[in-house]
Amino acid sequence: MTKSYHVAVVGATGAVGTQMIQLLEDVTFPIKEVSFLSSARSAGKKLTFRGEEVVIKEATPDSFAGVDIALFSAGGSISERFAKDAVAHGAIVIDNTSAFRMHPDVPLVVPEVNPEALRDHKGIIANPNCSTIQMVAALQPIRAAYGLNRIIVSTYQAVSGSGIQAIEELQTQSQAILSGEEFTPAVMPVKGDKKHFQIAFNALPQIDVFTDNDYTYEEMKMVNETKKIMSDASMKVAATCVRIPVITGHSESVYIEVEQDNVKVSEIQELLRNAPGVVLEDDTANQVYPHAASSAGKKEVFVGRVRHDLDDSKGFHMWIVSDNLLKGAAWNSIQIAESLIEQEII
Amino acid sequence: MTKSYHVAVVGATGAVGTQMIQLLEDVTFPIKEVSFLSSARSAGKKLTFRGEEVVIKEATPDSFAGVDIALFSAGGSISERFAKDAVAHGAIVIDNTSAFRMHPDVPLVVPEVNPEALRDHKGIIANPNCSTIQMVAALQPIRAAYGLNRIIVSTYQAVSGSGIQAIEELQTQSQAILSGEEFTPAVMPVKGDKKHFQIAFNALPQIDVFTDNDYTYEEMKMVNETKKIMSDASMKVAATCVRIPVITGHSESVYIEVEQDNVKVSEIQELLRNAPGVVLEDDTANQVYPHAASSAGKKEVFVGRVRHDLDDSKGFHMWIVSDNLLKGAAWNSIQIAESLIEQEII
Repeated sequence: MTKSYHVAVVGATGAVGTQMIQLLEDVTFPIKEVSFLSSARSAGKKLTFRGEEVVIKEATPDSFAGVDIALFSAGGSISERFAKDAVAHGAIVIDNTSAFRMHPDVPLVVPEVNPEALRDHKGIIANPNCSTIQMVAALQPIRAAYGLNRIIVSTYQAVSGSGIQAIEELQTQSQAILSGEEFTPAVMPVKGDKKHFQIAFNALPQIDVFTDNDYTYEEMKMVNETKKIMSDASMKVAATCVRIPVITGHSESVYIEVEQDNVKVSEIQELLRNAPGVVLEDDTANQVYPHAASSAGKKEVFVGRVRHDLDDSKGFHMWIVSDNLLKGAAWNSIQIAESLIEQEII
Repeated sequence: MTKSYHVAVVGATGAVGTQMIQLLEDVTFPIKEVSFLSSARSAGKKLTFRGEEVVIKEATPDSFAGVDIALFSAGGSISERFAKDAVAHGAIVIDNTSAFRMHPDVPLVVPEVNPEALRDHKGIIANPNCSTIQMVAALQPIRAAYGLNRIIVSTYQAVSGSGIQAIEELQTQSQAILSGEEFTPAVMPVKGDKKHFQIAFNALPQIDVFTDNDYTYEEMKMVNETKKIMSDASMKVAATCVRIPVITGHSESVYIEVEQDNVKVSEIQELLRNAPGVVLEDDTANQVYPHAASSAGKKEVFVGRVRHDLDDSKGFHMWIVSDNLLKGAAWNSIQIAESLIEQEII
């Protein structure tokens, strides 16, 4: 008998939770029941799932009775509060927040890169940061073939990574500027930080708050998570993370240095053309390259502008784009659930 | 007797020409006469300069009789057509287009970096590309103190670098998207190229057309102009140039490697704090960093987010922002004129 699963989504009304629920409609594994959970504020709202009405309930420690897979995306504090309850009830938690990502007992997984790490789970599995996921998914085939010594990345990140309030702020602020009206920034770059700046028609070099080393947490997530996912603490990784006025779709300007000599651009392009979850869009003669607007709503990671560094024979530049709510969050979480089932871990 | 100058502006109605005329109002050197020149289409329009009405005239070879300084910013083909006429009439041409920048007989000048190059002029002086100017102005003090081996830059460039049509497209397209209306991209990324893509709420990794090596002309301008301005053909320079939905103000994520060992971030910050034309805005604890919206309308180059690379002791990252129409174009041209006069070259 094929096993059927009870799946919970915590943060069901958020930007990522909404996407998770849509993606669950079409998963390949059998679903016997869903629980859509939220804060008390959103509880009672109704959603339609596979043609049936589902009432959103307030998340409590007992919400996870009978749940097999619990997808969390309601902020780190909610994950810290309820993940252990879910695990105690026998669920496997797939957590989209940064709460557990660097915990040594928690696998941090991008299924195209390190699905084997799922076997070591102790109840909680972490979904990496959006900007990390798309980068490692694109770089993994290159690393597997030629080795990878160094990554320098500058990001062009969409506001939806900061949630629905950030999307609303970008829209209302853009309209205010176009109409010549006053506005007061209140959400970006970081809702909980001291100062807020204009995001419409601007670029802000701050995502998440600053750490003691003058990098932001977002930048250090890219550094530390990349090393963990790729199991290579010695890899050189540096990041500059920048918020730009895009609603959905993160773009990344990535420089890499491979280990092997004499690698050709055409070889890297061929690897990416055949890599799982990656789409090569790279034909400069015909202006073919990915961009946020062309990638939003799609599950894959798109790569273009692959070219040799002009000075370093082992250096290459490329442009990596993906939907930050899908592959960067909801879709990667769903893929982790599918991989757990395919590997018969659950 | 103090000399007084006849100054011509070619491209008087363009995005940069308009800024040049505004800046000429306040220059320190005496102006005895101005000639504002344009295409036949804009000829006859009237501008006010220092309280007097000036009629814009169509540029012809004879427009430059008696002109001492001719500021060109009407596109490369206009410069190619008329610059020699201006020189033949005895004017010094300061050209803001890319027409003559890499010509060995043409000084390419950022006055904070290489004012001495002006002495070798043969009638034409080139103003560098906007994205190059702000970068070399910020890096020059670091290079002078510690040497500079390598630059890797990813840009976040405003649409006004593509002229008034690009600004209008960003505005009307943004409004269409906010209103849920259809739109057809027609200008960006490059008006004269085959395809056009959405620029509102998007990021396009193409500025200018592509060259044979899969870099764009804009990227190769940054590479070649930086080497020429800094008189160092062996410096490693790589660029990824990206257009984002900002009206005015280019931002740059810049990685550098210095030659000297044991350079401290605080030393670089101190250099930048005291550098001519540069303003250090760098205090992460108080969310102080430059951004396009805070820099637009100002003449200086703003630098923040200075931090050590996490792996390479000679590596540093920083964020460089400037108004692309001012220091990136009109103001640098005016500064060249001022420097010619200060150095008694004219």
